[in-house]
Amino acid sequence: MHDVTRDLSEAVATSGVQTGLCTVFISHTSASLTIQEGADPDARRDLEDFLARLVPEGDPLYTHTAEGPDDMPSHIRSALTATSLSIPIANGRMALGTWQHVFLWEHRRRGSSRHVFVHVLGTS
Amino acid sequence: MHDVTRDLSEAVATSGVQTGLCTVFISHTSASLTIQEGADPDARRDLEDFLARLVPEGDPLYTHTAEGPDDMPSHIRSALTATSLSIPIANGRMALGTWQHVFLWEHRRRGSSRHVFVHVLGTS
Amino acid sequence: MHDVTRDLSEAVATSGVQTGLCTVFISHTSASLTIQEGADPDARRDLEDFLARLVPEGDPLYTHTAEGPDDMPSHIRSALTATSLSIPIANGRMALGTWQHVFLWEHRRRGSSRHVFVHVLGTS
Repeated sequence: MHDVTRDLSEAVATSGVQTGLCTVFISHTSASLTIQEGADPDARRDLEDFLARLVPEGDPLYTHTAEGPDDMPSHIRSALTATSLSIPIANGRMALGTWQHVFLWEHRRRGSSRHVFVHVLGTS
Repeated sequence: MHDVTRDLSEAVATSGVQTGLCTVFISHTSASLTIQEGADPDARRDLEDFLARLVPEGDPLYTHTAEGPDDMPSHIRSALTATSLSIPIANGRMALGTWQHVFLWEHRRRGSSRHVFVHVLGTS
Repeated sequence: MHDVTRDLSEAVATSGVQTGLCTVFISHTSASLTIQEGADPDARRDLEDFLARLVPEGDPLYTHTAEGPDDMPSHIRSALTATSLSIPIANGRMALGTWQHVFLWEHRRRGSSRHVFVHVLGTS
């Protein structure tokens, strides 16, 4: 899980929008987005471990295995989390709660370069 | 699961928007949002029971345990459901299906006060 | 899983929006939306099989059973996937990744007619 909150905050600040909506979209099927506890790295590790156990590698159920043992679980983990998130903007900032950070969740063992789109709308 | 449909409907009606989009965002990491069957309380109880079994308290996997046995499961349950929802507005009302109600899903045993942001845009 | 990417692409093209946001919403509680691998049908089958095993029919946990054995699992499967998705529009097209297709995920054995709302906003 990679914290992208600062990048998003900068995009919102640059836009000059005071009241509006920030939509985040990841253009991949083996990585996803989530808003989670940003303070304690243990919480993130538990999340990763839980999802890895829930959707394990090497499950005999999988038939789509040509791209490696971490490929099919990465699709399922993506489907169970979020591909898009919409966050209100108030007073020029994302209205995130005290503990909320936005994470790009890489589901492959070795992710390649990832792209996230940020769409900001509103009034300045 | 707390039904917040009426609150959202009132926010949309107050806005005067006839055609547009209503985005709902919960600013917490231990409670989430879902759109589900609103008619039968049994369906909600089954949903709650299923998620409680899928992501149980007391799982030895958890290391983030300082805030109590219901804390880490609440984060995971949030990650597996929704933090934001976007609902189209048509004819001045949310375009919810016949059975769809919007719920705030409290994942802690004893939730504190919760905040939900509602962003409405469109043309009146 | 039914591929609805082409329908969405046509809606976006018809709108004339060049830069903006496309929000997709399904007005049902027993079918959902997901963005997933569109190239290999095996990946979709694995997704369907995984979710069917994770949320099986006939689970003795269910009390909401009056509408058939596939009803309660369909609600839970919907809650674990997405009811709304927001996709940025750039250069007049949805900014989907190379492998991303948008699917309507029917969770009942025999779905009836389904409705999806598409909301497009932006500048032309």
